[in-house]
Amino acid sequence: MPDPNLILSPGDTIGILGGGQLGRMIALAAARLGLRTHIFCPEDDSPAFDVAHAFTRAAYDDRAALASFAASVEVITYEFENVPVETVAFLETLVPVRPGAQSLSVSQDRLTEKAFLDQAGVPVAPHAAVSDAADLTAALARIGGPGILKTRRFGYDGKGQTRVAPGDDPVAALARLGNRPSILEGFVPFVAECSAVVARGLDGTVAAFDIAENVHAHHILKWSRVPAPSVPPETCDKARRIGAAVAAALGHVGVLCVEFFVVRDGAGPARLIANEIAPRVHNSGHWSEDGAVTSQFEQHVRAVAGWPLGSAATRAPTEMENLIGADADRWKAILAEPEARLHLYGKRETRAGRKMGHVNRPIRP
Amino acid sequence: MPDPNLILSPGDTIGILGGGQLGRMIALAAARLGLRTHIFCPEDDSPAFDVAHAFTRAAYDDRAALASFAASVEVITYEFENVPVETVAFLETLVPVRPGAQSLSVSQDRLTEKAFLDQAGVPVAPHAAVSDAADLTAALARIGGPGILKTRRFGYDGKGQTRVAPGDDPVAALARLGNRPSILEGFVPFVAECSAVVARGLDGTVAAFDIAENVHAHHILKWSRVPAPSVPPETCDKARRIGAAVAAALGHVGVLCVEFFVVRDGAGPARLIANEIAPRVHNSGHWSEDGAVTSQFEQHVRAVAGWPLGSAATRAPTEMENLIGADADRWKAILAEPEARLHLYGKRETRAGRKMGHVNRPIRP
Repeated sequence: MPDPNLILSPGDTIGILGGGQLGRMIALAAARLGLRTHIFCPEDDSPAFDVAHAFTRAAYDDRAALASFAASVEVITYEFENVPVETVAFLETLVPVRPGAQSLSVSQDRLTEKAFLDQAGVPVAPHAAVSDAADLTAALARIGGPGILKTRRFGYDGKGQTRVAPGDDPVAALARLGNRPSILEGFVPFVAECSAVVARGLDGTVAAFDIAENVHAHHILKWSRVPAPSVPPETCDKARRIGAAVAAALGHVGVLCVEFFVVRDGAGPARLIANEIAPRVHNSGHWSEDGAVTSQFEQHVRAVAGWPLGSAATRAPTEMENLIGADADRWKAILAEPEARLHLYGKRETRAGRKMGHVNRPIRP
Repeated sequence: MPDPNLILSPGDTIGILGGGQLGRMIALAAARLGLRTHIFCPEDDSPAFDVAHAFTRAAYDDRAALASFAASVEVITYEFENVPVETVAFLETLVPVRPGAQSLSVSQDRLTEKAFLDQAGVPVAPHAAVSDAADLTAALARIGGPGILKTRRFGYDGKGQTRVAPGDDPVAALARLGNRPSILEGFVPFVAECSAVVARGLDGTVAAFDIAENVHAHHILKWSRVPAPSVPPETCDKARRIGAAVAAALGHVGVLCVEFFVVRDGAGPARLIANEIAPRVHNSGHWSEDGAVTSQFEQHVRAVAGWPLGSAATRAPTEMENLIGADADRWKAILAEPEARLHLYGKRETRAGRKMGHVNRPIRP
């Protein structure tokens, strides 16, 4: 059996499931600490391949490839939550996987995720499971207003969701999502969105970054700002505490993100409603590469290696702008800003809606 | 003919001659900016191989390998000054090499280097060329005190040098250096050592980092501190100006370091004596990875790519400690310091005197 308390040494290798920009930035952070990485990913020409010691291009259900991958690394992590739980369960028999299958299974299914948050005492939007048209009609009546119908699995960046209101044709709404098992979430009239990015070490120590306030455009994160300009400090503190509690409840090892809606009822104080958990480094933590003492990627590597976490303190107020699709064509102008910190992911093809890079800038008072 | 004004685009490839830690850190900085790297290096298992898109292991005089390397990259740079000038001269016929052969040839030979600095009006130690025992005896008499006899070429980290005083056996001294063409430098009674690390862009713009004060142990850099604790501000300004002037006089494109002795004659002001030029990123600039807005490695990549330089401003007073040989065994204790920024080079074997990594720490007032 793999040793759950394994601590890596410099020169050891971290296996990473997934070869996108998150895997790439984890690999770069690992390299700085003298660790090697081995990327496992089904796609050709993945951004992380360029910066890793080794890569395996194979399907997530290719047991032979997975076994050989596991034999070449000391520990395994993942860069995104849509890795099949079966893949991780198989790998866990061979080598420690951090974070484990628990973090993955909870966050892969929006219904399980909501139940988990509810159980942990974290407020969530009103919601109901939807399997068919009758469920949807009943759920809309119970929630009593418009809502967002989302597939329970494999949604991200606004994919797999559609808005519905009482009186809409439930059959058509379900058809738009391919008639997959879904969840109806009551529409939350938020005044802001924010996220808690926290790292939890193998010893249970938690280091929480300052809260980022997020602005989405077309369902994709466009801006994150730290400190959060419109979220009160006490609300930020609460969000950090929730992030830490969620990480602890999951027995999470690594970085995790909880996304929140901030709502205000009349003159009352701001309230947080948890939207979703990402059991991994997160786009809203990219500011930390230039704005925090230790980046989220380094924190993740440290946790996965069984090493102590670094300081998550903010070095300077920072604004992260995502470069989506043709935004990245502005690279020359961004390079000409002396203090802008450009990060490009090395993707060969620019496509609309594709995350090509990001830029961190100091926020001037 | 290669286009001397070539400007790279994201996704392009920088070829790097040399695969040590400097090449590795250049490759990491390039990756962050969406550029690929291809390492050319004669040694097996070089630290830079792990983080590059491609590598070629071949000798510097292997024309076929060099031509194929040049065909796979848009531009070539080097991580150290002992690449043969013939190699660079050959590559320059195929693809732009930045910095060029001029920076290399001046800095490869201590006598040429001294003449160049002298010509540029930069004070250097009294010195004389030494080919044989008669030269050495005459040079010692002329300099009138103890001095350091150094081989003109291929010396670094105290290798290829020996102390001599009037009356010593000149034949024995030359024999200690393998009877190679040498230079006698008058001993400089310095009160401090410091270095100017400057970047010069393709358009001639110069960005100079703050001056680092350096402490050597056993002829190897051990500490660099910014700002320099014991060098007066006006002396630091002068050192930066000299660094910029040297870069301009060489037509240098990329990062360059000028190392200085700081001397004080009685109650007079501090004087600078230039010791040597490194036409590349330099160990005394490693603090910039965590202490400056833009690291020396990123500045070098930007210059080599024909891109604008970033800000070289200091973000926070920083102290760099080199981890030499068994120093790197302290990695666990260093990781446990929340604000220490550990950099390890992924070298498989620890040897006495080998640079294994470094650590940057904020300097508290």
